[in-house]
Amino acid sequence: MGKLSLSVLSFVLLLGLGYAIREPQGECQLSNIDAREPSYTVRAEGGQTEFWDNQNNEFRCAGVSFRRHIIQQRGLLLPVYHNAPVLVYVTQGRGTYGVLTSGCAETFESGQQQQFSREEGSQRFRDDRHQKVEEFRQGDVIAIRAGDAHWVYNDGDQELVVVVFHHNSNYANQLDQNPRSFFLAGNPGNQQEEEQYRRLHGSKRGQEAQSELGNVFSGFDDEVLAEAFGVDVETARKLRGQNDQRGHIIRAEKSIQLIQPHRSRQEQERQHNGLEETFCSARVKENLDRASRADFYNPRAGRFSTLNSFNLPILRFLQLSAARGVLHRNAIFSPHWYTNAHSLIYATRGASRVQIVNHRGQAVFDGQVREGQVLVVPQNFAVVKQAADQGFEWVAFNTNENAAINTLSGRTSAIRGLPVDVVANAYQVSREEAQRIKFSRQETLIFNSPLSA
Amino acid sequence: MGKLSLSVLSFVLLLGLGYAIREPQGECQLSNIDAREPSYTVRAEGGQTEFWDNQNNEFRCAGVSFRRHIIQQRGLLLPVYHNAPVLVYVTQGRGTYGVLTSGCAETFESGQQQQFSREEGSQRFRDDRHQKVEEFRQGDVIAIRAGDAHWVYNDGDQELVVVVFHHNSNYANQLDQNPRSFFLAGNPGNQQEEEQYRRLHGSKRGQEAQSELGNVFSGFDDEVLAEAFGVDVETARKLRGQNDQRGHIIRAEKSIQLIQPHRSRQEQERQHNGLEETFCSARVKENLDRASRADFYNPRAGRFSTLNSFNLPILRFLQLSAARGVLHRNAIFSPHWYTNAHSLIYATRGASRVQIVNHRGQAVFDGQVREGQVLVVPQNFAVVKQAADQGFEWVAFNTNENAAINTLSGRTSAIRGLPVDVVANAYQVSREEAQRIKFSRQETLIFNSPLSA
Amino acid sequence: MGKLSLSVLSFVLLLGLGYAIREPQGECQLSNIDAREPSYTVRAEGGQTEFWDNQNNEFRCAGVSFRRHIIQQRGLLLPVYHNAPVLVYVTQGRGTYGVLTSGCAETFESGQQQQFSREEGSQRFRDDRHQKVEEFRQGDVIAIRAGDAHWVYNDGDQELVVVVFHHNSNYANQLDQNPRSFFLAGNPGNQQEEEQYRRLHGSKRGQEAQSELGNVFSGFDDEVLAEAFGVDVETARKLRGQNDQRGHIIRAEKSIQLIQPHRSRQEQERQHNGLEETFCSARVKENLDRASRADFYNPRAGRFSTLNSFNLPILRFLQLSAARGVLHRNAIFSPHWYTNAHSLIYATRGASRVQIVNHRGQAVFDGQVREGQVLVVPQNFAVVKQAADQGFEWVAFNTNENAAINTLSGRTSAIRGLPVDVVANAYQVSREEAQRIKFSRQETLIFNSPLSA
Repeated sequence: MGKLSLSVLSFVLLLGLGYAIREPQGECQLSNIDAREPSYTVRAEGGQTEFWDNQNNEFRCAGVSFRRHIIQQRGLLLPVYHNAPVLVYVTQGRGTYGVLTSGCAETFESGQQQQFSREEGSQRFRDDRHQKVEEFRQGDVIAIRAGDAHWVYNDGDQELVVVVFHHNSNYANQLDQNPRSFFLAGNPGNQQEEEQYRRLHGSKRGQEAQSELGNVFSGFDDEVLAEAFGVDVETARKLRGQNDQRGHIIRAEKSIQLIQPHRSRQEQERQHNGLEETFCSARVKENLDRASRADFYNPRAGRFSTLNSFNLPILRFLQLSAARGVLHRNAIFSPHWYTNAHSLIYATRGASRVQIVNHRGQAVFDGQVREGQVLVVPQNFAVVKQAADQGFEWVAFNTNENAAINTLSGRTSAIRGLPVDVVANAYQVSREEAQRIKFSRQETLIFNSPLSA
Repeated sequence: MGKLSLSVLSFVLLLGLGYAIREPQGECQLSNIDAREPSYTVRAEGGQTEFWDNQNNEFRCAGVSFRRHIIQQRGLLLPVYHNAPVLVYVTQGRGTYGVLTSGCAETFESGQQQQFSREEGSQRFRDDRHQKVEEFRQGDVIAIRAGDAHWVYNDGDQELVVVVFHHNSNYANQLDQNPRSFFLAGNPGNQQEEEQYRRLHGSKRGQEAQSELGNVFSGFDDEVLAEAFGVDVETARKLRGQNDQRGHIIRAEKSIQLIQPHRSRQEQERQHNGLEETFCSARVKENLDRASRADFYNPRAGRFSTLNSFNLPILRFLQLSAARGVLHRNAIFSPHWYTNAHSLIYATRGASRVQIVNHRGQAVFDGQVREGQVLVVPQNFAVVKQAADQGFEWVAFNTNENAAINTLSGRTSAIRGLPVDVVANAYQVSREEAQRIKFSRQETLIFNSPLSA
Repeated sequence: MGKLSLSVLSFVLLLGLGYAIREPQGECQLSNIDAREPSYTVRAEGGQTEFWDNQNNEFRCAGVSFRRHIIQQRGLLLPVYHNAPVLVYVTQGRGTYGVLTSGCAETFESGQQQQFSREEGSQRFRDDRHQKVEEFRQGDVIAIRAGDAHWVYNDGDQELVVVVFHHNSNYANQLDQNPRSFFLAGNPGNQQEEEQYRRLHGSKRGQEAQSELGNVFSGFDDEVLAEAFGVDVETARKLRGQNDQRGHIIRAEKSIQLIQPHRSRQEQERQHNGLEETFCSARVKENLDRASRADFYNPRAGRFSTLNSFNLPILRFLQLSAARGVLHRNAIFSPHWYTNAHSLIYATRGASRVQIVNHRGQAVFDGQVREGQVLVVPQNFAVVKQAADQGFEWVAFNTNENAAINTLSGRTSAIRGLPVDVVANAYQVSREEAQRIKFSRQETLIFNSPLSA
């Protein structure tokens, strides 16, 4: 009995410790934050998706998750909707996408007329109508509401790379914070992918990873589907994708021809100024890469462009915003904190030293962030960036429709807002020193370095 | 010692397993959902209330609870307020109710004039003034804000049956998700009811059940109440209902005469168009049963009526909406998902086969729902209904003021919004087959079945 | 082995019981509430702060925390921002404060002109510009958004005492509910304070207490700070306050001279009527102590003044409100509940008997609240107050921008809104008794007592 007792004890102990070690739900001490890389990859016929582990402390506390799609030429990300609003940033390439909005009509229609097919340039008879489709390219941010199905097609001439930010703790998601992706086609969670994962990683994927992807049709009955779609059972079965081995990104074997207006690039840019009256016609895309788009600009140090509900109104509904930063060699992004948002930084080029400080004055992160890595900066935590020799570029996703930055140094900073005598007393310095602390830096957000030259 | 050790071990093990088995707080895998019936009944002098167990997985995850009042003729549901907004649907009978809104004046007054008493038809002198009272009947939905006290009186000629949907995870409830009912009279949580429960179920009620009902006056001091009401201590004691054995629904021994305008039915319907300027005069009721009220109508298949903040503005404040569906024999409700809401379905007549599918493509429910049962459809989960031979009728309560449906089949569906070439590639079908998948069903939401005829 | 087994068992048991005893996360039975006093003090050179333990049941369930600053003459509370919106009430003294709002310009500027220094009255040359500063005095409520840095200076002629209400479960705080205070100067969480705490309490402070205060600069690198501020490394080091032993409230050794308009008291009052167009110029302060400010007034019983988003618009953003109550000897505050808010009561003078009743009709608090104590009244719980012989004064902080009170007795009360026949049947009283219950008390909120005279 002694032996039994011991082994049972161990089991109980492990159980107990499992609970003891894990921080209580809702607790986020965040005494350590890391620059994160993807933890596993799901490969498919037409590309692959890299997932960041959303169970780490700072992702869980911020209620966010993150993934990167790499879509080959003629690759099609199958139609899918998520349980949370997402922001997409296009890091490379170009393509076409469509968002299927609840109750919106098919406003792109061929009718009975002849259409030019963009892809082949040949004149062909087509009979189709579908919801709006739109081109996108590197630097675009695309905003998609929770539950809105969408698809992406790489009709460009190179690999397409997009990163996707999910805000699972958003008000729009009424279930738990696990990311959920509901596909409308294919067989994304199939056994083959699981085996592939095992071969790559030597272990089984965690439940959360395994369970993120699936085709909702596969749970319905063939006969019910046949009736619901008014097709024969054989066709209905194809909706369920049971024997589909292509995964969630397929290669378009049949050419994809879309009904699409032909416009010059300039027209495309100009259209972004009108009113957006319903979700059916709301603009969901804006390019953040052009230098002329910058909100903060310093030719010797870099630039910073923000995208919020004032310039992309649908973000009011998503309660999210984004920003794009470029720092030249050794330039500094003013020490600051966000008053109302967590911020997830994705490094798109170069590297930067970053320090993040919590309310105890401890550096919870002090290290380098390099291209392809993700860093979460929690709300209110103070952060400073200094670009490495090769410079630094990033895109930031923020959990507030108008994320408000408070700087510690430079014009409009908190320290500048203090009376000089308060500064002198607070830091035990002379009035002259206090004035230097307040006024030395004349720039607002991005400072060039003496080392930059 | 060995024996002691073993029994202690068992205890510890049970404790540990209790924690191990329960899903972590905030986790809602929802791999299985059931059609639910009430789990216990609280009987009272003038009727009874059946409670659904709100600790089951899908109720807990959706943050909802549900109960059904059966009120006999001359039965009075004592004044009560809840910690959450509620939607009431009247499944049978008619009655009168009043909502006591914070700070609103008593706008129904007899003054010093003679009044006709509706109930007795006799001319009597009355001196009273009270807040607005209103009649209701089968098919009415009534919306009540968290914390607003209300009462219901069955002055009709048959048993009155109403179902009540509580949205405990609503923003308006700042405590935990347990339903709480604060009565202003009687002795609802008395020992007698507890004993009755034990006799019926052979066990003690769980704490959550026991603790839902109580008279707030019973916790106050007689002397303080006497002073606060300016009455003698004997009268004050009656407010506390200590010896009241009648329960939460009483039989009106004394006739209940209300000050009420006399109006024809038409007038009553017509009044629903004006502006509602304050909560004191806000409309809180609308009938969803009339076929002419339908938003979707198909004479061969059925109809669907929605009630949201556009047609009942107070729902903007409650952040809830409702719908009423009728499916004829074997008719199909298009496979769909709600982008922004959980939906609780209460079957009012007939039966239906229902399938609910999660993001992994698994059917978490595949079975029949029959009259009197409740089924929770989580946000984003895909669902399809096909009525049984006797047809199917239901009322749905949704956790968003404008619950948005996305259909998978039929006009304005997601699949219809896809370009035909995307459909052909996604499902590996020919363009002709893709066109059939998109265009075969011409109806929008409710499809008749070839088997219906 | 037996002995080992037993001790391990005890350990496991304790572990298990630790979990068993603690209410499950998100559960708030609140079967007992206490009048609370501060649980520990953090002393500093220029004053001290008393903290209420925010881990007690009712603070945790309401998502609030509370502290009291005592600031000596010439004491300066160092610039700090919190992770939650706060309401400040000034219980004694007067002083000057500044709020540093993100992106706002320094609108108080000396330019190159001569300025009168208020403090010394002498004409001196000053060159400074800073954000708006404002005087405050006893009775003022000040509203500060999450993440907005602020400082307080006692330039009055007596000790300054302010209490601070933190609403940690506010929508504006996206991390956990622990209060976090990010200082911009000093060395608030230093070892000395910890030791002082140990001397006073004979034990180590809990982690949550220890971790509330810190200077964010201390986590940054000297070199990075020097570059970011454009100062030498020696000055940068002073920002980090490593060797500062003065704590979070310092004594201003150097005189503090502020740029400030000179205005008569009347002007200051009058300015409070204009429009507030941006956060930079939004009014954040209002005095609640003047009797003429009362919303409910009864010369024989007392008064009640409310501050909500209608009279202080920034409260719409904070989703908080406040109120000030005065009860004369033995006067009664009508039994009532808040439909949409928790309420934290801080007793500023005298004492009162208070009863709080839950939905089961149980008194979860029945006792006296005295000057300096805090009592949390949960949403929907019914409460009644009766002042002691010396009378009672309090300030209440509510977790809704327009906390809605529902009274049980008096004019516009719930009971008054009921038809007299419903009252008669509900309480089993005669119609005449029912009319007395409804109509005896003619006052609305504050009732004088026959014992008051």
